[in-house]
Amino acid sequence: MVYSGEAAMSAILGRVRDINERSSFNRWLGIEVTEAEIGSVEIRINWREDFGQYSGFLHAGIVGTLIDTACGFSGLTITDANFLASNFSVNFLRPAMGDVFIARGNVVKPGRLQIFTRCDLYAVKDGSEKLVANGDTILCVLPEGDFK
Amino acid sequence: MVYSGEAAMSAILGRVRDINERSSFNRWLGIEVTEAEIGSVEIRINWREDFGQYSGFLHAGIVGTLIDTACGFSGLTITDANFLASNFSVNFLRPAMGDVFIARGNVVKPGRLQIFTRCDLYAVKDGSEKLVANGDTILCVLPEGDFK
Amino acid sequence: MVYSGEAAMSAILGRVRDINERSSFNRWLGIEVTEAEIGSVEIRINWREDFGQYSGFLHAGIVGTLIDTACGFSGLTITDANFLASNFSVNFLRPAMGDVFIARGNVVKPGRLQIFTRCDLYAVKDGSEKLVANGDTILCVLPEGDFK
Amino acid sequence: MVYSGEAAMSAILGRVRDINERSSFNRWLGIEVTEAEIGSVEIRINWREDFGQYSGFLHAGIVGTLIDTACGFSGLTITDANFLASNFSVNFLRPAMGDVFIARGNVVKPGRLQIFTRCDLYAVKDGSEKLVANGDTILCVLPEGDFK
Repeated sequence: MVYSGEAAMSAILGRVRDINERSSFNRWLGIEVTEAEIGSVEIRINWREDFGQYSGFLHAGIVGTLIDTACGFSGLTITDANFLASNFSVNFLRPAMGDVFIARGNVVKPGRLQIFTRCDLYAVKDGSEKLVANGDTILCVLPEGDFK
Repeated sequence: MVYSGEAAMSAILGRVRDINERSSFNRWLGIEVTEAEIGSVEIRINWREDFGQYSGFLHAGIVGTLIDTACGFSGLTITDANFLASNFSVNFLRPAMGDVFIARGNVVKPGRLQIFTRCDLYAVKDGSEKLVANGDTILCVLPEGDFK
Repeated sequence: MVYSGEAAMSAILGRVRDINERSSFNRWLGIEVTEAEIGSVEIRINWREDFGQYSGFLHAGIVGTLIDTACGFSGLTITDANFLASNFSVNFLRPAMGDVFIARGNVVKPGRLQIFTRCDLYAVKDGSEKLVANGDTILCVLPEGDFK
Repeated sequence: MVYSGEAAMSAILGRVRDINERSSFNRWLGIEVTEAEIGSVEIRINWREDFGQYSGFLHAGIVGTLIDTACGFSGLTITDANFLASNFSVNFLRPAMGDVFIARGNVVKPGRLQIFTRCDLYAVKDGSEKLVANGDTILCVLPEGDFK
């Protein structure tokens, strides 16, 4: 069966949402998958008091989580193969303060062995978006039969 | 007043624990600061179902959180200046499964403008430790008066 | 004196070229600064046999050099302050083979203490460009009076 | 045929030196492989005027080259499989000035799909070593038959 057009898009979105729901930590964070198409995704969370580091900004670990998650989800949009993150790296561009945080991840280079991905993280405050962090994740594709 | 010997050690440990308690996300994770001396710290968490990624391992974002937190805390042991993380990078060496996770962070190179730190993360299962991830964090020291 | 329009552009380009000429390794590589405007630069080299790794592709170290150099040069276009690289990170997306290599660097986020930059590296072969690597560099701005 | 003891050591050292000799850029730099055993290597270069960045220190690109090269060579000591670097990351801890530069690389975690490696770079001046940079490289192991 081959999906195309809108059906394909909604199949991809459905697949990413399923995986998102299977992660207990993503559920606790309240991560919502708002967009997913071939090669890119958008996820978001609403700020909660629980998410703070010691001075009340979004915790660096959650900044990293959103970036790594959006990167991994962008990988899901281009392959059915299993993969694991090898490495992720995050740059903290500005203090992460806002009501909503939006991570936009995309595949930079797909490959048989590795998928290179990137993500920008925006904080939304009073309706305007500000880039607060960026980062990248390398996904290592597992050979068929691995990782059951 | 100059601390020395055991008093200094316990002052450092107390300072790191205070900062740890001020982070709502660290409290939710249940991060415990088990050791802190000049240039190095050890923190740990107990596994909970809430911490899972989609296949039930410790979520990459929490792996990153532990590494970034231990790195930042190692910075606290060598300076009273304020600092922020510029960047952190994590390598996922093995799937992170265990009952307890221990992050050991240390300062590689202190500096007036930057502090370079590193961390190893171990999973404890049936009493034995396994290295599951490592990483580093660059801390940017803020000029006096900044960031009140 | 305030430069504007074309004069400003050519002043920026001149400044970057001067710095490029002062590096003996850049001269050996034959790095040419082909564009420079506020926040972005383009540099290039022509392939030579001397640049090979063991299987004849462009050496990973030279890939890194081009990315780090373009990132640093993009910093020169936005400030007169002195700075040093804190960290650079390179992703090898494809084997780097070509007649010409073009690195396009840009400032992602300028700051008083740090400048975050990024770069894409293209290999040109038979007239067509292919993205072969990307990376980022964090520049640490030195306080006035430092580093004379 | 199974090597053991000194014969194995010298076979490993010979293999790494062969690969080193096959890289034209390594020959230009004058990289010498001074030690190689299972899981670790040491390489060095002597300072030359050609190696400078704009203020006369060792160029960041050559710092990166030494780190990436020592990391890759440490991978050669544990497998006959082909591999390529996925990513390397370098921290610049101090200005790199010296008469000799020594990079010590080692395997942190070998794997069937990936090899995680690390390296410290020392500058030698007036007979004493100083740590000037560190970094890590992820090596992606190629399936058999690939990359002929």
